[in-house]
Amino acid sequence: MSTLTLPPLRIEADYLVETVGDPRRAVETMAGEQSSGTFVPVPGETPELKARSAARVERLDLLDERVETPSLPTTGLKAGADIRRARATLSWPIENVGPSLPNLMATVAGNLFELQAFTGLRLLDIRLPQAFADAYPGPRFGIAGTRRLSGVATGPVIGTIIKPSVGFGPEETAALVATLCAGGIDFIKDDELQADGPHCPFDQRVKAVMRVVNAHADRTGKKVMVAFNLTGDLDQMRRRHDLLVAEGATCLMASLHAVGLVGMIELGRMSALPIHAHRNGWGALTRHPLLGFSYVPWQKIWRLAGADHMHVNGLSNKFFEEDESVVASACACLTPLFPDKPCLAMPVFSSGQTVKQAPGTYRALGTTDLIVTAGGGIVAHPGGPGAGVMALRQAYEAAVADIPLKTHALSHPELAQALEP
Amino acid sequence: MSTLTLPPLRIEADYLVETVGDPRRAVETMAGEQSSGTFVPVPGETPELKARSAARVERLDLLDERVETPSLPTTGLKAGADIRRARATLSWPIENVGPSLPNLMATVAGNLFELQAFTGLRLLDIRLPQAFADAYPGPRFGIAGTRRLSGVATGPVIGTIIKPSVGFGPEETAALVATLCAGGIDFIKDDELQADGPHCPFDQRVKAVMRVVNAHADRTGKKVMVAFNLTGDLDQMRRRHDLLVAEGATCLMASLHAVGLVGMIELGRMSALPIHAHRNGWGALTRHPLLGFSYVPWQKIWRLAGADHMHVNGLSNKFFEEDESVVASACACLTPLFPDKPCLAMPVFSSGQTVKQAPGTYRALGTTDLIVTAGGGIVAHPGGPGAGVMALRQAYEAAVADIPLKTHALSHPELAQALEP
Repeated sequence: MSTLTLPPLRIEADYLVETVGDPRRAVETMAGEQSSGTFVPVPGETPELKARSAARVERLDLLDERVETPSLPTTGLKAGADIRRARATLSWPIENVGPSLPNLMATVAGNLFELQAFTGLRLLDIRLPQAFADAYPGPRFGIAGTRRLSGVATGPVIGTIIKPSVGFGPEETAALVATLCAGGIDFIKDDELQADGPHCPFDQRVKAVMRVVNAHADRTGKKVMVAFNLTGDLDQMRRRHDLLVAEGATCLMASLHAVGLVGMIELGRMSALPIHAHRNGWGALTRHPLLGFSYVPWQKIWRLAGADHMHVNGLSNKFFEEDESVVASACACLTPLFPDKPCLAMPVFSSGQTVKQAPGTYRALGTTDLIVTAGGGIVAHPGGPGAGVMALRQAYEAAVADIPLKTHALSHPELAQALEP
Repeated sequence: MSTLTLPPLRIEADYLVETVGDPRRAVETMAGEQSSGTFVPVPGETPELKARSAARVERLDLLDERVETPSLPTTGLKAGADIRRARATLSWPIENVGPSLPNLMATVAGNLFELQAFTGLRLLDIRLPQAFADAYPGPRFGIAGTRRLSGVATGPVIGTIIKPSVGFGPEETAALVATLCAGGIDFIKDDELQADGPHCPFDQRVKAVMRVVNAHADRTGKKVMVAFNLTGDLDQMRRRHDLLVAEGATCLMASLHAVGLVGMIELGRMSALPIHAHRNGWGALTRHPLLGFSYVPWQKIWRLAGADHMHVNGLSNKFFEEDESVVASACACLTPLFPDKPCLAMPVFSSGQTVKQAPGTYRALGTTDLIVTAGGGIVAHPGGPGAGVMALRQAYEAAVADIPLKTHALSHPELAQALEP
């Protein structure tokens, strides 16, 4: 996607900031606070120590726009205060924290969101030294492993989500999976709300579903990839992982924010299966444009920790997000992290996905290395789920061949039906 | 602090919402999306299943205020749209997820922040069924354990932070700790930026500092509590924890957001030492008043997971936060979670703390069950750190006895010096 330069020698982070008063002074204070100093220089902060450990402001670009009202509340703000925006790049010696993802978070995304001088602060990107590539596994399966295990050599991996999200018992879930398998689906996932409740215990669900999946594989040679949501405490996730392996499952799912970084790193280290990373909760960190995180730095962390599939929402989705942002997220997952360790994750498109988004999605990405999960787009097809899966595949074939959907539909009845109003 | 009613039978969550159009319809959609349904009812969602698994809107209070511009961006917003705010309470059957903190997060704080119909959504509180109290350890030490281990029977635990944050080696750190011990301090903590960098490796720092702390304890009978920041991957945290125990340390520190929920639960289950929970990164989740989390629900999660000390910022702090919010956070930590399992955590006050905040802090809390960490307030005292510690103690004695600081200072020279301009 993008040309990759050598990894930087220092940890680098880009921010969008909004400050009361001079942005340079505010950003320099932040650099001090996030490294050798505190709000003010302290007695032990000698010039030698500072040279060795201080964060540096590498770049500061003032943005022209005038800001009338502060984006975020702060204390001590005077009426008519001069509020400005800038993009800033800070860097830290890797020796401050070593190649540790959790400690990286405290450095690049720690106390700084609370700083009084900022009425806006958003992490736009990070760039990490090679030592991080050596310290973490990254995705063990990624695109190639997912294609191998799901038996989808080319084109997108077509999937769906088990709905209702909550309420089905193990046998009702397995019956739905049987229908979907018969329909030729590649991938099925649990909803993130479904984990191990007493009405649908994880173990019973896995056993009932894998009986169906294995029987289908025995009959057809195709093992449908099911991402079982094993989110839970660490010992629970370990036990559930081992059950998945024992039952012949080929994927697990975990909610990134519910599990957290140390849990995901542990999962990444121990998992014998691809990790389908669900991003629920992400909205709280990203939805305000002057606060929190852009998707770009955030997905780098999880990929390095071992996520094989990363949710990116979808074009024309039912959430708040613009298509441009969705495309940027997907491209980010497909951009190498390090020259010798690309850590590519397969982007997962979801939320209101039908045949209609295929041309736009393919045009934006230039690849079919993606997972498309459609609910209504498959289940509600007039010809049934099997026709729904075929229609989605046909839509992507058309997109890749640069044939308009309507033209392709002339010779592909399932696609034609899916396009009917 | 507050009278405690019985735990609810269902999981309950309170939200502040801002919606485009009718808030009731938006909140009902959210209840469906977060339980048995999806954006629209799906085929398998029978009335029986819905009765068993659906989330309920328990309460909805429209707020009067007119909203001119949406607080957060969304798609498909028409000019002049009717934007309204409300407080809403939702409830879920505990059977949907079982007593699982990670899965609770996906339910009460999952995909909903991204919903298109909301231009504001903030989690204000949660109330949990008794099964959660039985499933998690909660703080093992809390107030009583911290007082016992630090030898502070009454009054606040007086502490400071090692600064420079980063840059000192193990021996420089130990030398500063020796000065602070000689000054009669109760508590010392690592900065959250200091973990295990090559210039100040965790093991060497712990050994050098504990030599000083143990020698001081042998001489005086007082073992200063040092919260060593062991934030890292799980195996690193385990090993560091064991080293702390072996060296006779009495506290550990971890960054909540860097470690994440599953890591903190694991730490809570295995730790033989009080857990000093650092909240760096919290600003990203809370700073916008119509997004993310209030402190009240957030601290409940971490306390149940096992946090003994919770950071709450401080009065007249150097961050963006108003005093009223700081006081509410501290009171939350001191409010029981369950009748038979209060899970109280000791609130930690920091950021620009001096003798001057003592009367206001005590008046607001009505207790000295707190940790006060002061930097300049101790180290920059004209009489040295020892006088700085004494002055802080004297300030709290005055606050408890309801004596004005200036009056108390007449007979307490260290306090008098601290009050000099």
